Amino acid sequence: MADLARLVQDIATEMRDASDRGEVASYIPPLARVDPRQFGLCVVTAEGAVHSAGESEEPFSIQSISKVFALTQALGKVGDTLWRRVGREPSGTPFNSIVQLEREQGIPRNPFINAGALVVSDINLAGHAPREAIGELLRFTRYLADDDGIIIDEAVARAEQATGFRNIALANYMKAFGNIHHAPELTLGVYFHQCAIAMSCRQLAMAGRFLMHGGLHLPGGPRVVSAQRARRINALMLTCGHYDASGDFAFRVGLPGKSGVGGGILAIAPGKAAIAAWSPGLNANGNSMLGTLALERLAEATGWSVFNPG
Amino acid sequence: MADLARLVQDIATEMRDASDRGEVASYIPPLARVDPRQFGLCVVTAEGAVHSAGESEEPFSIQSISKVFALTQALGKVGDTLWRRVGREPSGTPFNSIVQLEREQGIPRNPFINAGALVVSDINLAGHAPREAIGELLRFTRYLADDDGIIIDEAVARAEQATGFRNIALANYMKAFGNIHHAPELTLGVYFHQCAIAMSCRQLAMAGRFLMHGGLHLPGGPRVVSAQRARRINALMLTCGHYDASGDFAFRVGLPGKSGVGGGILAIAPGKAAIAAWSPGLNANGNSMLGTLALERLAEATGWSVFNPG
Amino acid sequence: MADLARLVQDIATEMRDASDRGEVASYIPPLARVDPRQFGLCVVTAEGAVHSAGESEEPFSIQSISKVFALTQALGKVGDTLWRRVGREPSGTPFNSIVQLEREQGIPRNPFINAGALVVSDINLAGHAPREAIGELLRFTRYLADDDGIIIDEAVARAEQATGFRNIALANYMKAFGNIHHAPELTLGVYFHQCAIAMSCRQLAMAGRFLMHGGLHLPGGPRVVSAQRARRINALMLTCGHYDASGDFAFRVGLPGKSGVGGGILAIAPGKAAIAAWSPGLNANGNSMLGTLALERLAEATGWSVFNPG
Amino acid sequence: MADLARLVQDIATEMRDASDRGEVASYIPPLARVDPRQFGLCVVTAEGAVHSAGESEEPFSIQSISKVFALTQALGKVGDTLWRRVGREPSGTPFNSIVQLEREQGIPRNPFINAGALVVSDINLAGHAPREAIGELLRFTRYLADDDGIIIDEAVARAEQATGFRNIALANYMKAFGNIHHAPELTLGVYFHQCAIAMSCRQLAMAGRFLMHGGLHLPGGPRVVSAQRARRINALMLTCGHYDASGDFAFRVGLPGKSGVGGGILAIAPGKAAIAAWSPGLNANGNSMLGTLALERLAEATGWSVFNPG
Repeated sequence: MADLARLVQDIATEMRDASDRGEVASYIPPLARVDPRQFGLCVVTAEGAVHSAGESEEPFSIQSISKVFALTQALGKVGDTLWRRVGREPSGTPFNSIVQLEREQGIPRNPFINAGALVVSDINLAGHAPREAIGELLRFTRYLADDDGIIIDEAVARAEQATGFRNIALANYMKAFGNIHHAPELTLGVYFHQCAIAMSCRQLAMAGRFLMHGGLHLPGGPRVVSAQRARRINALMLTCGHYDASGDFAFRVGLPGKSGVGGGILAIAPGKAAIAAWSPGLNANGNSMLGTLALERLAEATGWSVFNPG
Repeated sequence: MADLARLVQDIATEMRDASDRGEVASYIPPLARVDPRQFGLCVVTAEGAVHSAGESEEPFSIQSISKVFALTQALGKVGDTLWRRVGREPSGTPFNSIVQLEREQGIPRNPFINAGALVVSDINLAGHAPREAIGELLRFTRYLADDDGIIIDEAVARAEQATGFRNIALANYMKAFGNIHHAPELTLGVYFHQCAIAMSCRQLAMAGRFLMHGGLHLPGGPRVVSAQRARRINALMLTCGHYDASGDFAFRVGLPGKSGVGGGILAIAPGKAAIAAWSPGLNANGNSMLGTLALERLAEATGWSVFNPG
Repeated sequence: MADLARLVQDIATEMRDASDRGEVASYIPPLARVDPRQFGLCVVTAEGAVHSAGESEEPFSIQSISKVFALTQALGKVGDTLWRRVGREPSGTPFNSIVQLEREQGIPRNPFINAGALVVSDINLAGHAPREAIGELLRFTRYLADDDGIIIDEAVARAEQATGFRNIALANYMKAFGNIHHAPELTLGVYFHQCAIAMSCRQLAMAGRFLMHGGLHLPGGPRVVSAQRARRINALMLTCGHYDASGDFAFRVGLPGKSGVGGGILAIAPGKAAIAAWSPGLNANGNSMLGTLALERLAEATGWSVFNPG
Repeated sequence: MADLARLVQDIATEMRDASDRGEVASYIPPLARVDPRQFGLCVVTAEGAVHSAGESEEPFSIQSISKVFALTQALGKVGDTLWRRVGREPSGTPFNSIVQLEREQGIPRNPFINAGALVVSDINLAGHAPREAIGELLRFTRYLADDDGIIIDEAVARAEQATGFRNIALANYMKAFGNIHHAPELTLGVYFHQCAIAMSCRQLAMAGRFLMHGGLHLPGGPRVVSAQRARRINALMLTCGHYDASGDFAFRVGLPGKSGVGGGILAIAPGKAAIAAWSPGLNANGNSMLGTLALERLAEATGWSVFNPG
């Protein structure tokens, strides 16, 4: 599909020249040091074509995008009983809000806010050592991406751990309600390492393929999750994947997507493409400014929005 | 499509026999008196076929579903400047919450919660008499449905007006922030009448066709809204159409939808179908219990979820 | 007490020369037009001596200070059953907050925030015409002050009514919870007129005497309220009389007090003095900036704080 | 004062026979095991007379009452700069609420809610080892009470530490806002030990004398704090000393007081008495049910309410 290749290039070119690039996350030094001029885009189509542009091979900290893989892993472990401990409604308040937890007795609104992801980490821990749980997630992600080069950035993990007081507060707060089952510091250990997974746009788009293929690793290949579960993870990404700007992302882009403060976004066009965009500068809602814009351009040009007649 | 006709019948049969039907809205007598044993379903396909079952010709109070038509009308009047006065994020709190308005300075989170719909009514009022504004909306709805038999149930409108203290509070509260431009009682008059529009499942599904057809009244027919606007209204329905259970509806059904306390739900499968389901009993979130279940069955059987590979 | 007379004069002199006088309330024109350079102070001692300084004879809009007299009147009508409809805890949020009402099912936290005062007005209305209810309160206030010259400023009442959307919202919101028994517009009529009572510092201090004398109009005179009730009204003034700055007023001044956005403050030194201070400029919490400072000076110099060993 | 001795006895007799005694705090075993039938009362008058009744010599866990002594100690260290890190307004929400911290950027509303007390502990830690800080507070409390027998109940301290997830959450949450200066676990160590101080009613009433004497250890004795500071601590106790029931305590009792979940209450009648009441059963607000009732009886009979003409 020659047009798509050119489109990806054109979008990368537009983004390379953009003047307003947002603000790079500064809460930990390893993120604050990332060069804001970078932009990467990779589109993997249903047919398996890979179109990349910009710094699409540069690894970045996927941060909250890891919540998609961790949720998939946890659902594999405990199935729909997971929803007794985590809701599936948009949060309606900033992503680190603790207010909602008090009102709702320690049950986080969805698995893509920090509190919800901590419960998911607690499920994935499952009585093992944190090291094993994080190793398992890393192997799962490598499998999804067909790429053993994916690693955890230990400097990022250490920095998260040293400054993550708000997440420590969240984990202990939910522990007080009985919704964290392990010692909070163990659950937090899993969580901080999961956020520190580093991937390139190409690796990330590849890892997202199972959500494009209705739960299959590849068309005709082994099943990662059931079709229903793939659909539901996509639904959660659309309603909850961009913190308090999820509605805006659905409005502008119209695709299930999950963002991270490292500037990455994974977006899924079911049956059509798995897409990863990356640019370190964030908008006021904590989502990649150029990544969002690139996906808006791509969805507009391809008609891939799930809200189009198709 | 013989299978679809049978599917619609089968679903209606299952719903007719359901024992747990939820609770009929009781806040005004005309709604409280509705027989909870009723159920209707109507599916209009992209090809124009109409499949109905149950009490699909029985008019019911569409209530909040009117917010979809009113929003479409208001966007036609003021375009995207509307979004200066209304947000487009899920609310994260019960549908009548006033808390969020205080935190966000009188700007409602989205046009499908009551506060947002009141601002939309205020826009549609546009300096005219309430009677004219509501007449215009009624004509627009009749046009969308190709049905001049759609009327306003004056008994419902009067009952809303007599007991709608919470909506009166919302309107006056936003007036204090300057986000209601007319006298609150005029804006409320438009709003209460709009909620009292009565439609059957068939009329409602017909009125929803433009959202299935990418903004066209019919394929090849006149344009109601641009393709982008149709897509965006669908996106808002998916993220915000079921109050604080929007995430759950997306998770279970996977279609843009808008519910009303009269027990109706309008759902859109872009490019495939416009669907109306109705059953008066509501679940704990104020959405039709059997209407939701019927749509879940329909989406599962047809694969129409927007999150499917298609 | 020659020293007290001089002290009152000295304080008025200091306040006359103060450069930072706060901001005059601007939400209605009759208040916005008041000259911010004015300051008045009047101290009535237990022995009946009256010490005044500054513009102590100038009538001003007492606004929320009227809540003390209205509460006293309502307790006389319904006794402690009043506390089923109004709490007696500090509010912890700004004075016009509607959030707390949602959380606490339409029961205002105390009778000195607007919502609570609206319930008190609803009690005082008691099935009569608003005109009669407000006439009764005016007569009661004149009796307390021994002064028939106290009037209602109709221009203020009309302005309140024309712009009081937030209070209209509060009344309708509580009506939705069943905690306003009359038509909201009638209850609001009483409330808006009560806020528009105009009094001078001298009249206000005189009207506060019963709270200094343990509930007696004068020592040895007729009883207005029981000793217990006088004590309790004083307690409410201390914990709730200055909106979200009640703690600060207790900390700095140490006397039961009630402020109004007209810039007046009534303070009680039980057994020692009834005091009224007035200066139109308000601090960030909506309390008279110089009025508070004057009372702090007076309490410090006299040792009248209820927290002193005495 | 023979009458006072009898009054204290009579109150203890009434409380001994009370049937509704509230619920003993059950969140840690050492508190859950306390016999709910106990009641103690001790009144130390300005003249130095000590009147006791019931289990007035039985040590109990003073819990939050320690916040009074810790605040006094911290004010001695940093003076009024303390108020840059802690507010002095009633909280208006349950005592362990984290909501307010989010709204107010990590600044607790007052030093008597847990969050505020944690900041006070952080100030008292002042770069020392937790052991030293807590030793200093213990020595200060012994000095105030003239009693070297006061100790820390290590079993209580360990139990607090093992289950205090909510306090761990609070400390880390404030750390994220920069309002905890030490490592949270150190600050928490001080806090948990301070709560575990055990005192009898007699020891507690003795320790409260400086607040009755305007800041003097004894009349004519050395000064503990300035008269202004004593007054202000009393003011804070009255407005904030009983969590979300502070208004009710002021309304019913009319004295500055501080309660703890161990069932103790310290109350001050300035210039008249320092009082300690204890009964382990708590009311719905977490304050001693019989302790509050006993103080209400005492204040009514003696006329010691600060809101009385005196």
